[in-house]
Amino acid sequence: MPNRVPPILPGGFRDYLPQEMIARQRMIEIIESMFKRYGFDPLKTPGMELVSTLTGDDPDFAMILYQTQMTRTRISLDQTAMRFDLTVPLARVIAANPELPRPFKRYQMGDVWRGEKTQAGRFREFMQFDADIVGSANMLADAEIVALMVETMTALVGHGFTVRFNNRKILNGLPSFAKFDESLLTSVLKIIDKLPKIGKDAVLRELACPRRDQVEPEEEGADQKEQQYGAGLSNESVKQIGLFLDLSGNTDTLLAQIASLFSFVPIALKGVEEMREIVNALRAMGISEDNWSFDLSIARGLAYYTGPVFETFLTNLPSIGSVFSGGRYDGLVNRFMDGNIPAVGASVGVDRLFAALEKLQCLSTQKTITQVLVTMMDGRYRQNYLAIAGELRKNGISTTVWLGEDCSFKAQLAYAKRQEIPVVLILGDREVENGTVAVKDMRNRTQQNVPRKSLVESVRAILS
Amino acid sequence: MPNRVPPILPGGFRDYLPQEMIARQRMIEIIESMFKRYGFDPLKTPGMELVSTLTGDDPDFAMILYQTQMTRTRISLDQTAMRFDLTVPLARVIAANPELPRPFKRYQMGDVWRGEKTQAGRFREFMQFDADIVGSANMLADAEIVALMVETMTALVGHGFTVRFNNRKILNGLPSFAKFDESLLTSVLKIIDKLPKIGKDAVLRELACPRRDQVEPEEEGADQKEQQYGAGLSNESVKQIGLFLDLSGNTDTLLAQIASLFSFVPIALKGVEEMREIVNALRAMGISEDNWSFDLSIARGLAYYTGPVFETFLTNLPSIGSVFSGGRYDGLVNRFMDGNIPAVGASVGVDRLFAALEKLQCLSTQKTITQVLVTMMDGRYRQNYLAIAGELRKNGISTTVWLGEDCSFKAQLAYAKRQEIPVVLILGDREVENGTVAVKDMRNRTQQNVPRKSLVESVRAILS
Repeated sequence: MPNRVPPILPGGFRDYLPQEMIARQRMIEIIESMFKRYGFDPLKTPGMELVSTLTGDDPDFAMILYQTQMTRTRISLDQTAMRFDLTVPLARVIAANPELPRPFKRYQMGDVWRGEKTQAGRFREFMQFDADIVGSANMLADAEIVALMVETMTALVGHGFTVRFNNRKILNGLPSFAKFDESLLTSVLKIIDKLPKIGKDAVLRELACPRRDQVEPEEEGADQKEQQYGAGLSNESVKQIGLFLDLSGNTDTLLAQIASLFSFVPIALKGVEEMREIVNALRAMGISEDNWSFDLSIARGLAYYTGPVFETFLTNLPSIGSVFSGGRYDGLVNRFMDGNIPAVGASVGVDRLFAALEKLQCLSTQKTITQVLVTMMDGRYRQNYLAIAGELRKNGISTTVWLGEDCSFKAQLAYAKRQEIPVVLILGDREVENGTVAVKDMRNRTQQNVPRKSLVESVRAILS
Repeated sequence: MPNRVPPILPGGFRDYLPQEMIARQRMIEIIESMFKRYGFDPLKTPGMELVSTLTGDDPDFAMILYQTQMTRTRISLDQTAMRFDLTVPLARVIAANPELPRPFKRYQMGDVWRGEKTQAGRFREFMQFDADIVGSANMLADAEIVALMVETMTALVGHGFTVRFNNRKILNGLPSFAKFDESLLTSVLKIIDKLPKIGKDAVLRELACPRRDQVEPEEEGADQKEQQYGAGLSNESVKQIGLFLDLSGNTDTLLAQIASLFSFVPIALKGVEEMREIVNALRAMGISEDNWSFDLSIARGLAYYTGPVFETFLTNLPSIGSVFSGGRYDGLVNRFMDGNIPAVGASVGVDRLFAALEKLQCLSTQKTITQVLVTMMDGRYRQNYLAIAGELRKNGISTTVWLGEDCSFKAQLAYAKRQEIPVVLILGDREVENGTVAVKDMRNRTQQNVPRKSLVESVRAILS
């Protein structure tokens, strides 16, 4: 007798049982079909990579890794780890395969792993579905990504979402505009990023609050919370950022306001110009303006973005955060080879989106893909049951033969009801005599006897 | 300037570039569609599991693990690891979700990881595609698995394969039949498993060769190769096994011969009985007898099989080994809960099968899924190009707009040729004036001017 092992998962991991998986696959099919329409080709890279590939020089990335080690060899843990996204592996593929066409448009769907604290609705293993265009600095590429985002979301949820975008180049103009040191930009952006959560006043307060390095060591208590510190900006800088955050209006108005406010900041003007190109392209492609907008508060945390950045929020579930995000990252392949290769892309957080659509009841609740149950009513007719199943399957109809121990009619019908199998077939003495099959339509609760020869057509008629 | 990282993968891992991925996805679609026809529902479990779940009490499994650890916490390595198959996670799911219907038919496609020595054509990360029936001891379930194997392989390669099956219960009768100790059965089966590779004479020699524990310690040299040792069977036992291995003929003849040879070994007779049930069911389902056969040399290494076992060999590439294998394992869920739950299933080695089909040239060689390239001939007509792309995509046609820097006709046509994109669209002054679009059929090397309004139909006609 073996020791029993509890059938549990580590924290931050989950299963998808058939009913969830059927809905999830339908969601993924919609995403994939839209990505294909936009001419993205599939790519697959392994889940495990070298640590050096994944982290480059960035210790932030090293800290979220799941490192891996073979039991057999116990070779150093620092060598391999599970990937934390699909973008870094793409950059490696680009550097390793110079023969790939440029521009290179690829999509990839795959699991990623992050050794982080688990929060509500966040997992340590989750699926991403990415589309990227590598080798084009053209803003049309960025517009294609936004169009892809809008069309994919429309196919999934109709109108209940907005793709919001901004440009890092505009944000990179903030130090000149608001007169603070370039080195503080990252902390400033992290604080601005909180705008939708904490509101403008709190953001401005935090921007003015002293920085950690401005606080004397003896003043620090034992309980040093990061929230205690801010960006330590001057009143004048905070006032300027307040002006920036006050900008409002539709996309064209906003862009005109920034162009005038930032008229002496070339990098920001370049950003405005890029945004205008994207907006014009979206209009030319016929992408409904109801579903996208320019939004100055979109910053995106990741260090590698260099131009436009995109996020997607669900109208009825904004709290879940962005479900489809991306941006332009012109320097990433640089980790692996000389010469910048421009790139832009976006990624669906498949599991987060699934959780959201589940909450919004946008998902199918089908319990099984099985369309027909062939009951086993009489052992003498077993050959007939199997022949029927074989014939239905050959005709592309998902069919299951009753394989349970209890061959009572009650047990078999209960199974079909519970699984919501739409068609049940019954064959006994009378049917064999008459050359018919009894076909039960479980949704209409009707039953008819059809000639054995026209069984496939009858089943098809009920299913269609 | 960052330090350059070489864009390489760890040993035993590989990428699938678009051309390979397109072919691989087509292969997977065929498999998935057949699994659905047989009424298997999808399931997804995480790639990472608790080590206790994966290994149970079996040290053989512990030795092939990739253990994992968060950089952040450095919690003990012994806790989590990447899964090495999809069967053990299924057993965990069954034990954790007693509300699942029984019989439970599920398929799962997923990557698995094995920290083993890399051999030619074997990877440390590879995909499996499994179908299992849990909760049925009925031999019809085993027959369904064999039928699924035959029909899936037929859809993939036509006639060039055989599914071979045997029954562990027959093999479990060998100790009684050939009069050797039960405890030696595993080593005996491992030697018999080599039959196709080394031939009958070598197998019999090895069976007679002394076991490691029969050799005096002082006799052992420094260079102890396992091949030096055998099963240490008596001459009489070896002779009996020779008789067993000599059995030949078609399925019915073989079964009759075993029944008579093993007439005093109840467990083997039970195995013969099970095989007969499977064979009768396959015939009733109309599964062509050309593609399956009973084969006494099929044993399967894994400890957990308890009844019928199945393997699949490609006629023109037997050396690659079995590409689709499985069997009945009635005790596996036992690791997690009281009471045996019968189960049977089989697994496609997706990457091995892909490598085989590549060698046999059974795969598509399509380079891109893109069907139409909209060229960018004149910046003034950019809006028209984008509108055309938008319209084609809305009609489900995979379309890419030229996003490269070099907007010469030559560069754009070269790209379309190289990528084998079937349709190229051109729009310049003349076409805009006439309200037409030039449509280039790249396969026929023809070009026609079609009215802008009927563009979608014209493109569809070329593609169909």
